[in-house]
Amino acid sequence: MSKGSVVLAYSGGLDTSCILLWLKEQGYEVIAYLANIGQDEDFDAARKKAEKLGAEKVFIEDLRSEFVQEFIWPALQANAVYEDRYLLGTSIARPCIARRQVQIARREGAQYVSHGATGKGNDQIRFELTCYALYPQVQAPWSMDNHAPPDLYQMTKNPEDSPNEPDVLEIHFAKGVPVKVRHVKEGTCKETPLEIFCYLNEIGGKHGVGRIDIVENRFIGMKSRGIYETPGGTILLHAHLDIETFTMDREVRKIKQSLGIKFSELIYNGFWYSPECEFVRHCIDKSQESVEGCVQLSVFKGQVYILGRESPKSLYNEELVSMDVQGDYDPCDASGFIRINAVRLREHNRLQGYEYFKK
Amino acid sequence: MSKGSVVLAYSGGLDTSCILLWLKEQGYEVIAYLANIGQDEDFDAARKKAEKLGAEKVFIEDLRSEFVQEFIWPALQANAVYEDRYLLGTSIARPCIARRQVQIARREGAQYVSHGATGKGNDQIRFELTCYALYPQVQAPWSMDNHAPPDLYQMTKNPEDSPNEPDVLEIHFAKGVPVKVRHVKEGTCKETPLEIFCYLNEIGGKHGVGRIDIVENRFIGMKSRGIYETPGGTILLHAHLDIETFTMDREVRKIKQSLGIKFSELIYNGFWYSPECEFVRHCIDKSQESVEGCVQLSVFKGQVYILGRESPKSLYNEELVSMDVQGDYDPCDASGFIRINAVRLREHNRLQGYEYFKK
Amino acid sequence: MSKGSVVLAYSGGLDTSCILLWLKEQGYEVIAYLANIGQDEDFDAARKKAEKLGAEKVFIEDLRSEFVQEFIWPALQANAVYEDRYLLGTSIARPCIARRQVQIARREGAQYVSHGATGKGNDQIRFELTCYALYPQVQAPWSMDNHAPPDLYQMTKNPEDSPNEPDVLEIHFAKGVPVKVRHVKEGTCKETPLEIFCYLNEIGGKHGVGRIDIVENRFIGMKSRGIYETPGGTILLHAHLDIETFTMDREVRKIKQSLGIKFSELIYNGFWYSPECEFVRHCIDKSQESVEGCVQLSVFKGQVYILGRESPKSLYNEELVSMDVQGDYDPCDASGFIRINAVRLREHNRLQGYEYFKK
Amino acid sequence: MSKGSVVLAYSGGLDTSCILLWLKEQGYEVIAYLANIGQDEDFDAARKKAEKLGAEKVFIEDLRSEFVQEFIWPALQANAVYEDRYLLGTSIARPCIARRQVQIARREGAQYVSHGATGKGNDQIRFELTCYALYPQVQAPWSMDNHAPPDLYQMTKNPEDSPNEPDVLEIHFAKGVPVKVRHVKEGTCKETPLEIFCYLNEIGGKHGVGRIDIVENRFIGMKSRGIYETPGGTILLHAHLDIETFTMDREVRKIKQSLGIKFSELIYNGFWYSPECEFVRHCIDKSQESVEGCVQLSVFKGQVYILGRESPKSLYNEELVSMDVQGDYDPCDASGFIRINAVRLREHNRLQGYEYFKK
Repeated sequence: MSKGSVVLAYSGGLDTSCILLWLKEQGYEVIAYLANIGQDEDFDAARKKAEKLGAEKVFIEDLRSEFVQEFIWPALQANAVYEDRYLLGTSIARPCIARRQVQIARREGAQYVSHGATGKGNDQIRFELTCYALYPQVQAPWSMDNHAPPDLYQMTKNPEDSPNEPDVLEIHFAKGVPVKVRHVKEGTCKETPLEIFCYLNEIGGKHGVGRIDIVENRFIGMKSRGIYETPGGTILLHAHLDIETFTMDREVRKIKQSLGIKFSELIYNGFWYSPECEFVRHCIDKSQESVEGCVQLSVFKGQVYILGRESPKSLYNEELVSMDVQGDYDPCDASGFIRINAVRLREHNRLQGYEYFKK
Repeated sequence: MSKGSVVLAYSGGLDTSCILLWLKEQGYEVIAYLANIGQDEDFDAARKKAEKLGAEKVFIEDLRSEFVQEFIWPALQANAVYEDRYLLGTSIARPCIARRQVQIARREGAQYVSHGATGKGNDQIRFELTCYALYPQVQAPWSMDNHAPPDLYQMTKNPEDSPNEPDVLEIHFAKGVPVKVRHVKEGTCKETPLEIFCYLNEIGGKHGVGRIDIVENRFIGMKSRGIYETPGGTILLHAHLDIETFTMDREVRKIKQSLGIKFSELIYNGFWYSPECEFVRHCIDKSQESVEGCVQLSVFKGQVYILGRESPKSLYNEELVSMDVQGDYDPCDASGFIRINAVRLREHNRLQGYEYFKK
Repeated sequence: MSKGSVVLAYSGGLDTSCILLWLKEQGYEVIAYLANIGQDEDFDAARKKAEKLGAEKVFIEDLRSEFVQEFIWPALQANAVYEDRYLLGTSIARPCIARRQVQIARREGAQYVSHGATGKGNDQIRFELTCYALYPQVQAPWSMDNHAPPDLYQMTKNPEDSPNEPDVLEIHFAKGVPVKVRHVKEGTCKETPLEIFCYLNEIGGKHGVGRIDIVENRFIGMKSRGIYETPGGTILLHAHLDIETFTMDREVRKIKQSLGIKFSELIYNGFWYSPECEFVRHCIDKSQESVEGCVQLSVFKGQVYILGRESPKSLYNEELVSMDVQGDYDPCDASGFIRINAVRLREHNRLQGYEYFKK
Repeated sequence: MSKGSVVLAYSGGLDTSCILLWLKEQGYEVIAYLANIGQDEDFDAARKKAEKLGAEKVFIEDLRSEFVQEFIWPALQANAVYEDRYLLGTSIARPCIARRQVQIARREGAQYVSHGATGKGNDQIRFELTCYALYPQVQAPWSMDNHAPPDLYQMTKNPEDSPNEPDVLEIHFAKGVPVKVRHVKEGTCKETPLEIFCYLNEIGGKHGVGRIDIVENRFIGMKSRGIYETPGGTILLHAHLDIETFTMDREVRKIKQSLGIKFSELIYNGFWYSPECEFVRHCIDKSQESVEGCVQLSVFKGQVYILGRESPKSLYNEELVSMDVQGDYDPCDASGFIRINAVRLREHNRLQGYEYFKK
């Protein structure tokens, strides 16, 4: 007699195949689920394998568009970078994958979900927190170390072997997300989120952009080494940072920056579906209302160089910058501003004395 | 009759020469002061020019070592970057230059200081705030727009023209500052702060590292465009970030990160000599006690690639990372950790309902 | 010939009467404007005085409702308290008063606004920043020290002389703002914002609630002494803090708390009408969606005591709190949670050694 | 044969007596440990009871002085308040108690520690995290719900029944901690940390100061109700806040405020002995260098009223505050300051338009 149904996040690989068999042996009905988030995979072969191993049903789900639009774009709006360096690729994929798994489990009446993420790492946490958040009654009967493939760069060329000619792109933004990418020389244009992201991965990969080798702090309190490549994400981060500073008020930016750092931690730690992450996403989205315009940049030998930017919402006012030239700026204002800012500093000196000269 | 003495920050250029003459005409005695912070300058020629224009005294001060040790090193410890991109080169130089000017003014009994920084920009603020903080009674009788030289890159090669071979360096840190740099292949070693910094400027410059073209938010509330190059600083920032994450506790790092952002704003806005900046510097310095070890990196075509790191103070514990392999790690702990973290998320779902599926 | 029109924030007192006369002498046409934000004032007498002194027009504007709803309520949602103690009464009134003044100036085609706030204090800044933000072309030709009335308590009784019986109230909230107040014993009910606020001022005043004598940090960098009374605001702050903690997720609360601190500084410094304050208000408002329910409290001898609270949106789950009693809570979870949290602490000890026992 | 030694945090009550017996039955040698942190307890009776139940050794440790100096004083320097209301009494006691327990375990060669704190609450976490941090090899073999005594107020009178006369005190601070308390009328003086704290508890208790009834967010993610009384702590918090604002630079205070909020969370969650808490304590201690002076206050009917303050380190400069009276303050400075601050606001209006009038 069946113990009930399990939706298993199946990869087609050895580990999750073992889990599938083991779950069957334990008396569960297994629904295999493969998420396509853009990885290089023979989905048909995986489907056949799952069926052969005894899966009741197999769902292969194309999540690529929703991954880009609902997960990568908000992270981009936030300039989300964990510990100043990691662009959070995998971390962002987990809640997207687990969300669909929960949807399948609810629809199919499955009480269990299972996955192959390891017990010692972040992915188990990201996976399970998402499941608990979206399906509080769910249980996760079994997980197993899904031995990571050797962490070699798969999308990016070695910058030393990359072309000796840069590619120059224009990226157009509206509300803080890219809406069009144009290759200046070739004229190629991409206008849907998925196409834009894939194209930038291609260009970035060709020039070896976005490779890092870091030690990072895991949620469970240990440090571990990570080797990552995020070619498209790196190009977008540079472009977004630029257009954002161009169009966003300085003080809004400061507040938004600290929300972005918080957002990055939440994503990394698996809290995409939490009240605080939802709140932060809302606030960041609000901050992006005027982040609009076009950035021109060059991609070359692992680097992204901003060449220029323009925007109908620009707060950069050339006339204002050179206003003293025109005589309608009163230098007395700057002096007053400085003297008032100095009131506190002078008092501090008067009362407590700076000791800078004694050292 | 003399109106008193002015210490003028003299550059040898047209603008400050005009100021010198004007001050003389107004009846001030002028003490010319040239700070050597590593710029390319004919100091002897400048001295002669100042004397010829009527300066009572001329002081040429070599501030290079103190600039590196007392100003650049603390900024490095903080990973100080303004608005996520600008490494604050000029901003850091101002308090260093103004401090010596104040020292000269106090020593020579001058009641006035003067400079050539413009009224519309940040440098006037940085200069004057430092003077008021360190010499509350001082006055600054005259400043004038010191037309900036065309913002072209002077230290860095165009990455497209840079060598096709990387240079591989080892940078050794103690208490968060570099104490030795070694060129792996050539064996070159640098061990004093000034030598280290100059050498990294040279290597970085050769490979076109650290060029940026940005729009930034000035203190006085307008945006302006800046083109900067910070070759040595960029290499050091990458290396420091790496060794810091390797040796510093995760939670200390988070707190320190926000202090570093604050520090960057303070530097940019001219508040190096303020009680809050002093406080923040103290705290950041404290955080660096264990930031020790060696980073190996490659410099190539405008990029810095971390190759590896090692440290006697490493918190990266390979045994711990792979502990489940050894059987002394209880997977129940991770599950408990996750379930407790999920308590709040499940309650949120139960009471208010996530609407993620409705959208 | 007229130099143009000035809208003068007229108080009926000596200072602004002098300003009115002086402006006339200088050749301006003066439009007198009196804002009623609930102060004790003979507005008819003030109107006559202004007319007699030569005001072209006199506008007496009842801003009480919009002051409560559009200014006090958002501050309450934020738990806005400057420097941990000051409830920002006057600071919140300035942008409300200046906004209407700008509206009148725009409508009447006046190019100037004038006010009696002093040059050395915060009110001048609050007033003028609001005017510049809402009417960039405006000028403020003259301001003068409006000698503050002796800072005596006018709304609150001395707690020593207050009744020996508490008043017990129920305050109902929706979206973080009060929607009803009921006096439990007397049955009195207030349901409009203005009535609620006036009633709480009355009850709080009767019991001597909300008096403070502080030293505060002004925006211009000096400290000054302030004596304030905020009877109704203090009652509301206690009640709001309580219902908020009862209904808001812990982590959302933390983020919102830091936004509230920022908001308080912005209000104090006069930046109500700034992009960042607008952004922060939006975020705080978003955080209040579930802040709903009823708080019962007692007001007595200068204090507010929370007696209890209830809410349909409560995240306080009695069953969950006592869940181990019911056996469906696995103690292993708490142990795992603790052990995972300790991983980092143990590593720190292992590698660097705590020195707590050596001291 | 013995399984080894356990140091049990013994209270003399039923729960820990049961644990003691159970541990004996399981084959452990039990060392009973009673911490005196100022609670009302018959320690001799408890010692006899423990011996009778079979404890090998009994240690009764007077931790009162170190509790006040090493734990309460740093929390006071931080103005540590959890979620804006809870003064963290119990939370601060746990690391103090557990530290001594670990010291005993190390000295006596015990491999285990045990306590009676419940599995569902915060105290288990605080206890165990401290043990793991200070004694990474330790194990905690058994804990049991130590049914809390009914949460009634034991130290404080009902304010309604408190005296009709205030007590007026002077509290003297040095480096942010109290060094002397004087009763103005009676002349009573207390000068050691323990005496000061006990005396303020007595005075505060007599006037019903520091009672709260709150809902709080526990570390494990659920809300729970807490009823607390902190009479001495509440008086000290008011006094410290006052002298701190009087003597500390505004901008240092802002940074220190956010560190204090962080510190409060760390204490509440049991991380007193963590690298980040150590770091934060260091920084806060640094901030207190000039927090020196005397605060006069009145305690009455549950409230603390600040009457005045004085300090040799005061940054409150009466001359400066009234400087325009003396003519050496240039009103042009304030106008310039305001106009520069308005640059950004006017630009925002110009480019994007405020919509405040449309609503």
